[in-house]
Amino acid sequence: MDYANQKLAEEKVFKDPVHRYIYVRDQVIWDLINSREFQRLRRIKQLGTSYLVFHGAEHSRFSHSLGVYEIVRRISDDMFHGRPEWDESERLVVLCAALLHDLGHGPFSHSFEKVFNVDHENFTREILLGDTEVHQILMKVSADFPKKVAEVIAKTYSNKQVVSLISSQIDADRMDYLQRDAYYTGVSYGHFDMERILRVMRPLEDQVVIKASGMHAVEDYIMSRYQMYWQVYFHPVARSAEVILRKILQRAKELHDSGYEFAQPPTHFAAFFDRSFTLKDYLALDEGVMMTYFQLWMNERDPILSDMSDRFVNRRLFQYVDFDPGKDYRKLGELASLFKKAGIDPDYYLVDDSTSDLPYDFYRPGEEGERLPIHLLMPNGDIKELSRLSQIVEAISGKRRTDYKLYFPAELLVDGKKKAIKQQIVEMLKEGGV
Amino acid sequence: MDYANQKLAEEKVFKDPVHRYIYVRDQVIWDLINSREFQRLRRIKQLGTSYLVFHGAEHSRFSHSLGVYEIVRRISDDMFHGRPEWDESERLVVLCAALLHDLGHGPFSHSFEKVFNVDHENFTREILLGDTEVHQILMKVSADFPKKVAEVIAKTYSNKQVVSLISSQIDADRMDYLQRDAYYTGVSYGHFDMERILRVMRPLEDQVVIKASGMHAVEDYIMSRYQMYWQVYFHPVARSAEVILRKILQRAKELHDSGYEFAQPPTHFAAFFDRSFTLKDYLALDEGVMMTYFQLWMNERDPILSDMSDRFVNRRLFQYVDFDPGKDYRKLGELASLFKKAGIDPDYYLVDDSTSDLPYDFYRPGEEGERLPIHLLMPNGDIKELSRLSQIVEAISGKRRTDYKLYFPAELLVDGKKKAIKQQIVEMLKEGGV
Amino acid sequence: MDYANQKLAEEKVFKDPVHRYIYVRDQVIWDLINSREFQRLRRIKQLGTSYLVFHGAEHSRFSHSLGVYEIVRRISDDMFHGRPEWDESERLVVLCAALLHDLGHGPFSHSFEKVFNVDHENFTREILLGDTEVHQILMKVSADFPKKVAEVIAKTYSNKQVVSLISSQIDADRMDYLQRDAYYTGVSYGHFDMERILRVMRPLEDQVVIKASGMHAVEDYIMSRYQMYWQVYFHPVARSAEVILRKILQRAKELHDSGYEFAQPPTHFAAFFDRSFTLKDYLALDEGVMMTYFQLWMNERDPILSDMSDRFVNRRLFQYVDFDPGKDYRKLGELASLFKKAGIDPDYYLVDDSTSDLPYDFYRPGEEGERLPIHLLMPNGDIKELSRLSQIVEAISGKRRTDYKLYFPAELLVDGKKKAIKQQIVEMLKEGGV
Amino acid sequence: MDYANQKLAEEKVFKDPVHRYIYVRDQVIWDLINSREFQRLRRIKQLGTSYLVFHGAEHSRFSHSLGVYEIVRRISDDMFHGRPEWDESERLVVLCAALLHDLGHGPFSHSFEKVFNVDHENFTREILLGDTEVHQILMKVSADFPKKVAEVIAKTYSNKQVVSLISSQIDADRMDYLQRDAYYTGVSYGHFDMERILRVMRPLEDQVVIKASGMHAVEDYIMSRYQMYWQVYFHPVARSAEVILRKILQRAKELHDSGYEFAQPPTHFAAFFDRSFTLKDYLALDEGVMMTYFQLWMNERDPILSDMSDRFVNRRLFQYVDFDPGKDYRKLGELASLFKKAGIDPDYYLVDDSTSDLPYDFYRPGEEGERLPIHLLMPNGDIKELSRLSQIVEAISGKRRTDYKLYFPAELLVDGKKKAIKQQIVEMLKEGGV
Repeated sequence: MDYANQKLAEEKVFKDPVHRYIYVRDQVIWDLINSREFQRLRRIKQLGTSYLVFHGAEHSRFSHSLGVYEIVRRISDDMFHGRPEWDESERLVVLCAALLHDLGHGPFSHSFEKVFNVDHENFTREILLGDTEVHQILMKVSADFPKKVAEVIAKTYSNKQVVSLISSQIDADRMDYLQRDAYYTGVSYGHFDMERILRVMRPLEDQVVIKASGMHAVEDYIMSRYQMYWQVYFHPVARSAEVILRKILQRAKELHDSGYEFAQPPTHFAAFFDRSFTLKDYLALDEGVMMTYFQLWMNERDPILSDMSDRFVNRRLFQYVDFDPGKDYRKLGELASLFKKAGIDPDYYLVDDSTSDLPYDFYRPGEEGERLPIHLLMPNGDIKELSRLSQIVEAISGKRRTDYKLYFPAELLVDGKKKAIKQQIVEMLKEGGV
Repeated sequence: MDYANQKLAEEKVFKDPVHRYIYVRDQVIWDLINSREFQRLRRIKQLGTSYLVFHGAEHSRFSHSLGVYEIVRRISDDMFHGRPEWDESERLVVLCAALLHDLGHGPFSHSFEKVFNVDHENFTREILLGDTEVHQILMKVSADFPKKVAEVIAKTYSNKQVVSLISSQIDADRMDYLQRDAYYTGVSYGHFDMERILRVMRPLEDQVVIKASGMHAVEDYIMSRYQMYWQVYFHPVARSAEVILRKILQRAKELHDSGYEFAQPPTHFAAFFDRSFTLKDYLALDEGVMMTYFQLWMNERDPILSDMSDRFVNRRLFQYVDFDPGKDYRKLGELASLFKKAGIDPDYYLVDDSTSDLPYDFYRPGEEGERLPIHLLMPNGDIKELSRLSQIVEAISGKRRTDYKLYFPAELLVDGKKKAIKQQIVEMLKEGGV
Repeated sequence: MDYANQKLAEEKVFKDPVHRYIYVRDQVIWDLINSREFQRLRRIKQLGTSYLVFHGAEHSRFSHSLGVYEIVRRISDDMFHGRPEWDESERLVVLCAALLHDLGHGPFSHSFEKVFNVDHENFTREILLGDTEVHQILMKVSADFPKKVAEVIAKTYSNKQVVSLISSQIDADRMDYLQRDAYYTGVSYGHFDMERILRVMRPLEDQVVIKASGMHAVEDYIMSRYQMYWQVYFHPVARSAEVILRKILQRAKELHDSGYEFAQPPTHFAAFFDRSFTLKDYLALDEGVMMTYFQLWMNERDPILSDMSDRFVNRRLFQYVDFDPGKDYRKLGELASLFKKAGIDPDYYLVDDSTSDLPYDFYRPGEEGERLPIHLLMPNGDIKELSRLSQIVEAISGKRRTDYKLYFPAELLVDGKKKAIKQQIVEMLKEGGV
Repeated sequence: MDYANQKLAEEKVFKDPVHRYIYVRDQVIWDLINSREFQRLRRIKQLGTSYLVFHGAEHSRFSHSLGVYEIVRRISDDMFHGRPEWDESERLVVLCAALLHDLGHGPFSHSFEKVFNVDHENFTREILLGDTEVHQILMKVSADFPKKVAEVIAKTYSNKQVVSLISSQIDADRMDYLQRDAYYTGVSYGHFDMERILRVMRPLEDQVVIKASGMHAVEDYIMSRYQMYWQVYFHPVARSAEVILRKILQRAKELHDSGYEFAQPPTHFAAFFDRSFTLKDYLALDEGVMMTYFQLWMNERDPILSDMSDRFVNRRLFQYVDFDPGKDYRKLGELASLFKKAGIDPDYYLVDDSTSDLPYDFYRPGEEGERLPIHLLMPNGDIKELSRLSQIVEAISGKRRTDYKLYFPAELLVDGKKKAIKQQIVEMLKEGGV
């Protein structure tokens, strides 16, 4: 039989805390899971630094990727199977895209990407199309198969139903991570009735819609997402750890650029500092590797690199206050001056950070970052946009919420010399409007 | 106020998936959690290689240690509080012992200890009594406090009630790990009614007993433990990964001893190879560090070190068959010869491994490894040993069960040269009684 | 010892699916639970006719009452205990009020109260103050104790903290029923982090407030309540059963008033038809008694009473369409005429029903039905109303939502004679805006 | 299309707390659920008097019957579908048998059957084959279909695979009730991995076997069952309520036989007292009807009927002591004499009761009540009986356990006259042996 249709002699089963079991029947899927690029996802945490706040959140992108695959498998094999609007020949491409959609994520992605100005989506494409085990497996299906998978993940694939299952405002990615992250953090948000949502999903021309009878399950999902963003993903303490992480990488780069001699040279990072990295350099990185450097760097001569590394490894994080960028920027300048006077480098020790989310959005054609809305299928066959039917979704629809914080090392402001200046800083920080 | 009784200005709360919340009021406990030796437990998985079978089991010893603390806190603050048989002055020592009982665990403890002939319990004691942040914190309570905590963990403490809460056949350690490991693996075993057990625990002279009305909850706990051991902890595939891990370390040591020149020298391991290690060397190790070496060693010249490292990192594990040591040892010798003839080094590629458990044991005075039994408190004040009342526990009591497996690289036995010999090997392995 | 402080020799424990265990230590509480008026609550379903839609929802008001008691017990014994703002002498009155707050509910309360124009709150007061076992038990505490309990339930009690725990926009009553009804129906709404909410509740002068750090748990609770109202409590099919139930009682009364001779006389109801009932008459009623009558009345000569009884007992409910009272009332008149022409009595077979809810309301002083808002306690000691801090609550705050339905027997409109008229009716009903 | 294959225009979905959703596609199943005989199961509790101990256990046989149907539907539609060993033409008969297997249960079955010497299995057969709505629906499938369904339930059906799904030592009936009863009582027993068991069930010639890889899930199921029997089903307090119930019915019959004039005549029971009942008489009974009588009988002149009714309605149950029938029967005689002397009728107020269970049994051909064992399918195709592979099951296999209790009204033995005799009784009861 051709490789695309080859089934395992015996179905493989993974025990999964979120979906109970994950089932694999296709040889292609099995081979992809066993590839080294996919196994690498075991070494990258799904929630980056969040485990420093929610100690249970130590799960990896490996688990999440299997979960997204399983949701899409249920949709394609149980829900969409046999429906005339669904093209069965898309089955394998959507399963592979689901499994591989996060393949390009690196260690502590968010911070890493910011500092080195890279994009995990590019790496995903490179892994799919470059010299990798994953690429070889996909090529065995057909010569154009790697490209198709890449297009689905890049949202440029022609069949929008397929794209929609992987990335839309209600996709398998979100449905898995909300439940999984809730499970591992232990928070009571993040629950919604996925079984119900899956059963009312319908393929329709160039989109996937939800039968109106499932509207309340969708509302619950939107609210879950909202709570998870503000309670878990944007938690200010996890962001404090990210701030420090960025500062470690920034400092190491600066030192490298300035010719500083490391006791422990940043071998794995050098190509990134120099922007000469290859895919191989990227794949050699993971969170264990980065943490190994940070532990070694705690002993570097450079006091900033050493201190920042120690802070991250031993969880000695920055404190924070709310911050209103509209009116507080001048104050921020004053604070920076005071930090300098107090002998604390504000480039590293006074950091503003913002984060923002749009809980749900209806369609705003032509606007930047436009998002496809969730469409409900009415009993009479009409299609209606979710926020037109749901009072609760309407209430939060299109309302972007942003949170600004200013991070600093509280304990440095109480001890030692230059007491007067430090006291002045503390007073300014207390005032609220930084 | 003295440090031992110092309370936090505001109670600290950890969200925990197993116990919902973990509460910290004592300054001592808070300081211990923030020590670098305790934070290090975040970098050591609770279940070692089990995540390669149960992908959800990526949780750390940090989480488990908090969990054991919380259970003991509930017992001492809610259940035992105010009972005349319980000495309130033991509260802090039992809380600290609960929190710190696993402090000496290293990366992939089981394998590491076997290869380097070390014992995590010794390291725990060294951390408590040596030059560490934890030691300094404990010393602030009183000069003899570190030693008291160490004695509780070593089971030599005079108050046996205290010892019993941390290590007995029904202790906070087991109650936490059964539930926690079940939660993270997602298996349906591991559940029992801990709230019930806690409510029927009673301090009594020199032991902790269970009111007879809670017997069925205890039965359920014993059964849970039994299932977890055989379904999770002794899973043959996780043991395959451990076998490989041991072989990596063994090979690296051999190469080191023989003067082999490593492309990536085993800096972190050298002191262990030479048995010249200090506590500092030990604390510098964690699973991220070890994995970083293994990834680098995939490129070593030595084919065995390189292959074994690749197998572990990319989860290319050994296959296994059952093995009866009573009658199959001669066969094992024959197999080893055949492996050599086939050009496969049996010292690394043909490995027998056994594991064994005693689900529950009544008291066998004088016997090796004697265990204190679980005692039930009858309504009339009598004490009876569990297996005398419980038919189910009686049925499995004292019955040791052992599992023997023989591990080998199945894929090397099908490909390439020396087909006849390999086929002979395969036949022998198939016969079952290898 | 005086009765108010008398403790049970051994704590009593109820296994509860929602709160795991319910603990009783006070002799007063134990005696109240064993009183005949409280045991009667076992014979009245918590959710009336909802079990005809959600078959799992067969739980009684007995379970709910124990649950409310347990929540208040935890608040008073664990959370508020020892706080200077909380008056410990209120403990027993608030526990009793929690346990007894629903004592006056009758069978299928909602419908029964509507038809007979009675109010369960009056019955609760009568049971507390009249010739009952409950009254005798409360009197043993002190002569004014029954009255105090009644005042708490009637919200006229002087200590508003106490009232607030039993009836406010975030009280023990709501917290229990949301979770309990979610559990028994099996829906995925209704979950929120009660442990968190309880831990951040604070007594304060004349109210109970929530620490601002718990705001998101409160948001989740408000959203849960919203979903439960629209998904469960207002389910149109359960309302169909209520419509029929009202029509049975209405018909029986009409027949009774007109001197109809019942084969099975409505002995238990007669005093209600004549408005000559006593408390004893009321307490003799429960859902088993009412169902017994309905089953006997299926054999009555009167075709409407017989048909309606059969519909209720055997779940042959009315169909429904949406209905807009603003513009459809004239149509409703036309429909009634057509029903008459078709030989179907519109007084019984064409019924409009509406239901409505206000998910949360801030304080609108002076307005009808004003509700106390939820107040958050800020870190600096300020008090802020919830909807001023929560974007999501603000979005739904004060927005009343009402649902109108028109109920009718669909199967009578397709069969038999007068086809043309019936077809006309069906067309009108289909038009949507009936 | 013929009725047997007729599908609903739209799948019907029931929300179920245990199985999440129950799916109905077949017109036959839908019609059966809506029949009056099936709706009647809503008025009969699944666990009889257990709700008087576990207040949450108020669920009905209706819920359980839907649950058994759903499990069998999953097996036939998902697991067995397409396997050559499974005959697809059996699908409808096994679904109907699953749904209807408990149809003949009456109110408080256990006690009712004992007193009136009837058997619910006969009533099930009568409902399937007699003049009922259910019968008419089944007849529409085919003339021999009612008989086939009855045979499956009676275990005489030729296809033993079909019988085995409904009644064997691991059948859909047990799998539903263990989980459901655990859910509603709230106990922590009763959980096992049903999804795993269903996935490893295999049809095989004339039986259903379990793949050996699922052995541990089966062990867990056997242990769950064991715990549920002793913790829930045989709870001595629920048995106390049953004892009283039997005594009410026995007394009413005695009074009826002796010509006693009831204030409230036992109309619904008369045909049972006289053994002249028809199926219609039986179907007119339910627990609401019985409770209505008991409430009325609390006011009868006969002190025993009145007292017993009051005890049941208001939960004033008998106390109990252990009792060893082997050696205590003489003592029982002495006690009876003393009761008489004390003026308490021992026929009603001194009742011995026993209950017994065999947790699992292997095959004992020729023995009374032989049970089919659970067979495991080995990887090599062999079949092995469960207890030969499972150490834990082996340990409890074939071991019958019986519990004897003696019930009496403790409060009558402390109050009032004849103190000396009563004290003597109390002493004897305390001695343990009785």
